[in-house]
Amino acid sequence: MKKLINKPDDVVREELEGIQIAHPDMVKVFFDPNYIVRADAPVEGKVGIVSGGGSGHEPLHGGFVGMGMLDAACPGAVFTSPTPDQMLEATKAVDGGAGVLHIVKNYTGDVLNFEMAADLAADEDIEVEAVVTNDDVAVQDSLYTAGRRGVGVTVLLEKIAGAAAEQKRPLKDVAEIARRVNAQGRSMGMALTSCTVPTAGKPTFDLPEDEMEIGIGIHGEPGRSRMKVKSAAEITEMLATPILEDLPFEESDEVLAFVNGMGGTPLIELYIIYNELSKILDKRGIKIVRNLIGPYITSLEMAGCSITLLKMDEELLHLWDAPVNVPALRWGI
Amino acid sequence: MKKLINKPDDVVREELEGIQIAHPDMVKVFFDPNYIVRADAPVEGKVGIVSGGGSGHEPLHGGFVGMGMLDAACPGAVFTSPTPDQMLEATKAVDGGAGVLHIVKNYTGDVLNFEMAADLAADEDIEVEAVVTNDDVAVQDSLYTAGRRGVGVTVLLEKIAGAAAEQKRPLKDVAEIARRVNAQGRSMGMALTSCTVPTAGKPTFDLPEDEMEIGIGIHGEPGRSRMKVKSAAEITEMLATPILEDLPFEESDEVLAFVNGMGGTPLIELYIIYNELSKILDKRGIKIVRNLIGPYITSLEMAGCSITLLKMDEELLHLWDAPVNVPALRWGI
Repeated sequence: MKKLINKPDDVVREELEGIQIAHPDMVKVFFDPNYIVRADAPVEGKVGIVSGGGSGHEPLHGGFVGMGMLDAACPGAVFTSPTPDQMLEATKAVDGGAGVLHIVKNYTGDVLNFEMAADLAADEDIEVEAVVTNDDVAVQDSLYTAGRRGVGVTVLLEKIAGAAAEQKRPLKDVAEIARRVNAQGRSMGMALTSCTVPTAGKPTFDLPEDEMEIGIGIHGEPGRSRMKVKSAAEITEMLATPILEDLPFEESDEVLAFVNGMGGTPLIELYIIYNELSKILDKRGIKIVRNLIGPYITSLEMAGCSITLLKMDEELLHLWDAPVNVPALRWGI
Repeated sequence: MKKLINKPDDVVREELEGIQIAHPDMVKVFFDPNYIVRADAPVEGKVGIVSGGGSGHEPLHGGFVGMGMLDAACPGAVFTSPTPDQMLEATKAVDGGAGVLHIVKNYTGDVLNFEMAADLAADEDIEVEAVVTNDDVAVQDSLYTAGRRGVGVTVLLEKIAGAAAEQKRPLKDVAEIARRVNAQGRSMGMALTSCTVPTAGKPTFDLPEDEMEIGIGIHGEPGRSRMKVKSAAEITEMLATPILEDLPFEESDEVLAFVNGMGGTPLIELYIIYNELSKILDKRGIKIVRNLIGPYITSLEMAGCSITLLKMDEELLHLWDAPVNVPALRWGI
């Protein structure tokens, strides 16, 4: 295992220390239990937004804490759900009196733990709504999941719901918008290589030197099929077609197109995938009105990509374009 | 070779097509010769800033074209200097009457070609100044380089000189600021793995499964030494010490600390390196006043990192904090 780490057991704690030292203007980091909150939390009268999940998907979720996105993130161990006490403390820390929205990726551990945290928060008179993302069209049920997995849509949802909360909309509205984003978004991913969980010390799965896996999960869970590595054009088609046919996306739809890197794939390749995707959508008369290209929901150093399409409407566009100030998008101060 | 590409020869062209389609609000892309200019170029009365170099270091340079940074970038083939005709066309496209600054990383091909382009531009009555970056303390002379290599400082310089140009300062001043950034900045990098140039089809160098290379260049040029993989703390020390002692950086200095990913290294590891770096600087009484953490000057999918320290002063801080709007930092519109 080749990684820029010290002890495998210390990876998450030391990463959080790095975030704390790097971004004190934006976030506060708490330890034992671990959670990250925006520096000015709680914001009076604003719905607090909390997400979280296993570490190893950075910048998701900690890099998205700040003005216009999340109020808090709960990082678990690598690829392991955070615990209810992390979620409860984060929920309490961001409660500004308008209730708290939990954004939960659909993995069994995350869902159960967030439910338990919501119950505990209710005992302390904090109103909580939960939205579960399940946008991955690759497989129904999987390792760690009943139903579909929550993947790329989570990034977009955190931005859009965050903007709605920033406008001081009530909890019910923010939750409704978040559910609409999940309902209108679909994703699928693929891997060229595996990744290695630091405490495991060896690759999560084996993939021969000339093969790829289509439909992979963000923890390396099995996808749809393995095959010889194909061209960028063929790979994009294999990801885009199931996405397009699932919602379905139709002629004259306006979409946000998100090409995500899995962590070990350079930007130059993501732009090639985006170029192919734009041709596919163009042929179907679907218009890309916004895009996002880069590594935003990753799987450690896995090489590969995922595509997420989100059907946009005027309200979602407006919220997508709203200002945001979070570590993952930081430059300068 | 596992990559998300079509034909190896088409990588750069298709990447540029992707950029063109993705960011028409920010940049215009021209082909044969290839160059990227900001959408509103030329800006009347503003010094135009042109950089460029081999592709494979994305987002450098094309991702930095836009308000507050570069007016144009010239992408060569992967790890290959662009040609004088690309540089000349870019220079003409961004000349707003106040002259043009060329930002050149110190590699023999880049330096010669930018000199030739400057001569050709002079024939067309465009005043050009060139600033050469040579911040890599790892080695003196190297494959492709006489003297030190230009690496991470280039990113910071493009931001800071770009801000100075945006204020409509004269060419002489913008060039002076750029030279100061180069003079006050030092870098060093390391690799855990090699990278593969698409047209070569095999790794640029071989690195055994348990070894790393310290002082590596951004094209995989040889560094200072190979050794067994060490801890993040030891690696950071091995990179930071030669940087600190070279300028030298001294107690009570204020610095911008830039931890750069080489393309295949996930963000979680970069924050661990940043955490170690902050401890080292703290011990020496050096204060980090700004930071940048992420993959900004990469080497395709190479795993590894580099550290750049830039000694700051009030003017550089002010310019660093100025607004910027470029594809590499894009979110939403």
